[in-house]
Amino acid sequence: MMTVHGMAISGNCYKLRLLFEQLGLPHRWVEVDSVHGETRTPEFLAKNPNGRVPVLELEDGRTLSESNAILCYLADDTPFLPADRWQRAKVMQWLFFEQYSHEPYVAVARFIRLFLSADHPRRTELPRLLERGHQALAVMEQHLADHAFLAGPAWSIADIALYAYTHSAADGGFDLSDYPAINAWMERARVQPGFVAQGR
Amino acid sequence: MMTVHGMAISGNCYKLRLLFEQLGLPHRWVEVDSVHGETRTPEFLAKNPNGRVPVLELEDGRTLSESNAILCYLADDTPFLPADRWQRAKVMQWLFFEQYSHEPYVAVARFIRLFLSADHPRRTELPRLLERGHQALAVMEQHLADHAFLAGPAWSIADIALYAYTHSAADGGFDLSDYPAINAWMERARVQPGFVAQGR
Repeated sequence: MMTVHGMAISGNCYKLRLLFEQLGLPHRWVEVDSVHGETRTPEFLAKNPNGRVPVLELEDGRTLSESNAILCYLADDTPFLPADRWQRAKVMQWLFFEQYSHEPYVAVARFIRLFLSADHPRRTELPRLLERGHQALAVMEQHLADHAFLAGPAWSIADIALYAYTHSAADGGFDLSDYPAINAWMERARVQPGFVAQGR
Repeated sequence: MMTVHGMAISGNCYKLRLLFEQLGLPHRWVEVDSVHGETRTPEFLAKNPNGRVPVLELEDGRTLSESNAILCYLADDTPFLPADRWQRAKVMQWLFFEQYSHEPYVAVARFIRLFLSADHPRRTELPRLLERGHQALAVMEQHLADHAFLAGPAWSIADIALYAYTHSAADGGFDLSDYPAINAWMERARVQPGFVAQGR
């Protein structure tokens, strides 16, 4: 059985939980508290020298890091990662968009507001994070205004990756009420077979 | 023939040039000056609503953005993206590492030093960018100390993606003299068939 080393409150880790549930794949979950240094122990760094969750560990001990790389690995040869070359390329486009243009703003704003004290110096980053996060949300909104899903005609790991931090964007101070297409897409997400809400 | 809308000095665009040359694939290059607003025109935003180079345009007008997604698309069914599921997952791991843990520091430091004035306020970001960039370089160094290439036994798009900004890291103020394994790997990069140096 595969093991996920993850932190339930992390959107990057929730992505994996969602895909495992949607694939109906049994897995073991080992909770790792990255906020309190558990990703910096020698044992954890042996699994991921970059010191981040999630990490997927195969039964034979091989490990894979980077949430979206793990999604690609698990979704290979399933409908969550289309076989068509162009559609697969579009899934990849949204996965890289998520890690470069969305997560560093939407997820980091959430981290600062959920985990750092009210007078922490990193709070000064919030206005810029909100500005850049809204730019990413606007790109999603524009696309979803005339597409049901992000990449191709069906739900895919592109949707899973972007749902993970978009659905909890309010934690970071993002008001999503001006994004009707994103809200409609999130409703479609919640009725996908095997959907599970994020734990806390 | 495919068209790349890119900026020669950008490492993200150089990745595509390198892969096109190594694949021996003819292509057209349209130079776009992203530093001076050419990625914010309505024409460009129609190709990539996220307003970034590079963009790949197929002969029929379909467009694909995100440099590493374009690498995956072009490398599909070639030795640059292994067919083996685990090796391919490891390529993906390094591609996401590059966009999340390397480029935002190594490339952004280079951008600030090459393009912004000596008294620009963003210069205050440089110490943090150097610190985080060195963390990413240390992860590469550790891996390359006992592997010839980043993902599996052969040169792949993972190496192309990370070569793009590592070879020019000095532009951002990174001293690479303490990274012998990275330097040896860059020497191996330069003798790959079809290798081309980055234009300026």
